[in-house]
Amino acid sequence: MSSSDIFISETIGTAVLILLGGGVCAAVTLKRSKAFNAGWVAIAFGWGFAVLTGAYIAAKSGAHLNPAVTVGIILKGGEGAPTWGDAPAYFGGELLGAMIGAVLVWIAYYGHFKAHLNDPEVAEQKTANPGPVHGVFFTSPEIRNPLQNLATEVIATVVLVLAILCLGLTADGKGVSWGGTLIVALVVVGIGFSLGGPTGYAINPVRDLGPRIVHSLLPLPNKGGSDWGYAWIPVVGPLLGGAIAAGVYNVAFA
Amino acid sequence: MSSSDIFISETIGTAVLILLGGGVCAAVTLKRSKAFNAGWVAIAFGWGFAVLTGAYIAAKSGAHLNPAVTVGIILKGGEGAPTWGDAPAYFGGELLGAMIGAVLVWIAYYGHFKAHLNDPEVAEQKTANPGPVHGVFFTSPEIRNPLQNLATEVIATVVLVLAILCLGLTADGKGVSWGGTLIVALVVVGIGFSLGGPTGYAINPVRDLGPRIVHSLLPLPNKGGSDWGYAWIPVVGPLLGGAIAAGVYNVAFA
Amino acid sequence: MSSSDIFISETIGTAVLILLGGGVCAAVTLKRSKAFNAGWVAIAFGWGFAVLTGAYIAAKSGAHLNPAVTVGIILKGGEGAPTWGDAPAYFGGELLGAMIGAVLVWIAYYGHFKAHLNDPEVAEQKTANPGPVHGVFFTSPEIRNPLQNLATEVIATVVLVLAILCLGLTADGKGVSWGGTLIVALVVVGIGFSLGGPTGYAINPVRDLGPRIVHSLLPLPNKGGSDWGYAWIPVVGPLLGGAIAAGVYNVAFA
Amino acid sequence: MSSSDIFISETIGTAVLILLGGGVCAAVTLKRSKAFNAGWVAIAFGWGFAVLTGAYIAAKSGAHLNPAVTVGIILKGGEGAPTWGDAPAYFGGELLGAMIGAVLVWIAYYGHFKAHLNDPEVAEQKTANPGPVHGVFFTSPEIRNPLQNLATEVIATVVLVLAILCLGLTADGKGVSWGGTLIVALVVVGIGFSLGGPTGYAINPVRDLGPRIVHSLLPLPNKGGSDWGYAWIPVVGPLLGGAIAAGVYNVAFA
Repeated sequence: MSSSDIFISETIGTAVLILLGGGVCAAVTLKRSKAFNAGWVAIAFGWGFAVLTGAYIAAKSGAHLNPAVTVGIILKGGEGAPTWGDAPAYFGGELLGAMIGAVLVWIAYYGHFKAHLNDPEVAEQKTANPGPVHGVFFTSPEIRNPLQNLATEVIATVVLVLAILCLGLTADGKGVSWGGTLIVALVVVGIGFSLGGPTGYAINPVRDLGPRIVHSLLPLPNKGGSDWGYAWIPVVGPLLGGAIAAGVYNVAFA
Repeated sequence: MSSSDIFISETIGTAVLILLGGGVCAAVTLKRSKAFNAGWVAIAFGWGFAVLTGAYIAAKSGAHLNPAVTVGIILKGGEGAPTWGDAPAYFGGELLGAMIGAVLVWIAYYGHFKAHLNDPEVAEQKTANPGPVHGVFFTSPEIRNPLQNLATEVIATVVLVLAILCLGLTADGKGVSWGGTLIVALVVVGIGFSLGGPTGYAINPVRDLGPRIVHSLLPLPNKGGSDWGYAWIPVVGPLLGGAIAAGVYNVAFA
Repeated sequence: MSSSDIFISETIGTAVLILLGGGVCAAVTLKRSKAFNAGWVAIAFGWGFAVLTGAYIAAKSGAHLNPAVTVGIILKGGEGAPTWGDAPAYFGGELLGAMIGAVLVWIAYYGHFKAHLNDPEVAEQKTANPGPVHGVFFTSPEIRNPLQNLATEVIATVVLVLAILCLGLTADGKGVSWGGTLIVALVVVGIGFSLGGPTGYAINPVRDLGPRIVHSLLPLPNKGGSDWGYAWIPVVGPLLGGAIAAGVYNVAFA
Repeated sequence: MSSSDIFISETIGTAVLILLGGGVCAAVTLKRSKAFNAGWVAIAFGWGFAVLTGAYIAAKSGAHLNPAVTVGIILKGGEGAPTWGDAPAYFGGELLGAMIGAVLVWIAYYGHFKAHLNDPEVAEQKTANPGPVHGVFFTSPEIRNPLQNLATEVIATVVLVLAILCLGLTADGKGVSWGGTLIVALVVVGIGFSLGGPTGYAINPVRDLGPRIVHSLLPLPNKGGSDWGYAWIPVVGPLLGGAIAAGVYNVAFA
């Protein structure tokens, strides 16, 4: 596939992923949303179905939507697999798409961001601690401990990428074709339920970095800082996780 | 397929869609329902499985159930696809079905509408603000801002229709056949979780217009007005969204 | 298939259906259960996955598990379909299975029924109104109105049986094979969310009648009456619904 | 397949199963987790998708992940099925994997275990009753009654293993291939909703025994005892259940 086809497909697919993923965070945390306080069940399913939707839309390019997945798939290799030569098109589309997706969340919830952040009660809290609105754009650990936070992101991403690499290995030798994307989406729901508690599970460098860049540029009132000190963890952790998953796969299952 | 086959299939399928979709709104918002206060998780899954059920029932006609989907599919075109000549049968069946579905919700929850609306506490609120019972019949924005409300409906519908148009584009060239309907239903669950917060996600002109007409005709006590001033947004937004999705598809993926 | 094969398969499958379906009611309503108060989302998914599990186990006999489904499938007819000659084996297995399932719920939650019903607070309420423990065994309307209650059961069952009859009618002519059972299970989840509010959705004569018989025989403390006055509605309503669904199918889609 | 291939595949798959399954217990019960108090819906789906993820990763060895499943599959037998000669590789991988998974939960939630157990309010409770943190590592009955607890585990495991043995028995003779794993995962969600209330549904000897061993070794503060008096029930119950399921299958469906 040509680099521009990859780039376009990944850009659109990742934009949808982040539109729906950031969207569910907005839906659940912004005070005047109909889904306000719908809780973690909504978050976990919302992100999983965000992956589902983005992935079918980007099926043409294999629907990586995530540099950690791209790294894992390239390191696994095999006939017809993408190579490091394709990586820039994947990475570029993924990052651009994530930024577009974050802007679309902002448009879809425009009045709600304003109402939420201008709410006197919220605004006061924000000076000290910018609170839930940040989750729309970037992840934050509940307990700030770089080593544990990194470990959690690595572990969660190994699970995600290893599952992706193993799909197709069914015992009867028949692959999962279209169903594989459904399975990956449900795996993401599962990771959200199980490993999302400590860091909010970026498990994808651009899910965090793209919207964080957008957050730093958006004219939101009382928005607080963009917490750049933490930003390396949800980038490095998932990339490491993707590489480790490929290693496990190549040693144990290839 | 003959126009009358299309019309009958879409009428029945859309009736089921709105029966179950309006039904979950009734189930969660009417005071003496067993599912009272089950929350947004119930709403999002309820509407998604309403699509699932209606869509398998209307499989014979391709299960559009939604003029925005009809517009998107016609504009995408391709061999064997429906044409503008089929549009009246689709649109007509979709609107009639939506009205029948709303009447069926009213029958299934007959005593609950009465009990809810005659509840002194509810009735008093209703004079000023007709409140949750309206959601059974039509959508309302949490923050009334025509431009944002329109944008939210356009964005959410682009996601829906683009996903539908892309199904079948799997990387391995195998289509998704029956599974496609399942995927679309889960995409609708995802849109509900992620983009339903601001406007209650019509993403379908007849989901809003059909039941709104029925609401204006039904002899419900203390029912309040039918909010016709807002009615154009959930019609125009989704139609625009369907057309934009076809444009994106034709430029980026065709 | 021989009558005894049908009977055995339907008995085991329906036993599992009611074990899991009655089980989720026990799990959510009995005071010392870990799932106590998990709410309607648990109920709706619990019953849907009860259908899923029972149906795969009874796949050999076509997994009716429900006389309304048997009626609908016989009336639809077609090559290889079961006939009225098979009906006694289906009906018998379904009723026996439902009774066995209810006994298994009682065993699995033995101590919890005792603890719940002996709880002074619960026991006092029970004299007047036997309350939630009944839902494990039989359905009750929130608002007692035979005509509306019957209508709700008919409407909900038409949706269920029509969906079952239409599976396989996919637009591309490929059937849904194993996936059909998954879809039916999700349709049941949807019916629970959307149409379960008024009557607790029997949509299956034996789901109500079988466990009600068991309830009347079980030595539960403070159990209250078995509400036989209502018992005809969840039998007649679903049977009528199954027949109407076959009529709609034969007229509109055959 | 060679014993070492089975062992490696089952070890990795079961590690992922317990990482995600124990993880959702940690996510929902540890005080400073983002998913704190997400409830039983999260638990049931979390464990189901844990099975899903682990099972696709261990597809190469048939993804037993559970000695009760291994017993059931061996007793069912048939061409190409694993035999008692393969059992040590299965059992060994399953137990080792469960222990690794529990350690990974501890790493991913390291700071949260510490914060939770050092919380004065929690710590005080712990002296008498170690409370929710235990659920991450092992199951406990709500009402301690060995006979009922054993019966509940037997019944729930019969359902699980019988469903697994029956998959592939679809009425049209087409198997379920990759979809079977998805179905099993949803069956596990269903068992959680319906039969998890009394004992917390081990339904898998190593799910309980592996993490319990790890709990007894881990340097957690205020962790309380490891409740070895109950440990035989979630081992014996599931093994019995797996054997009974194979018996039912061989008598009724073979």
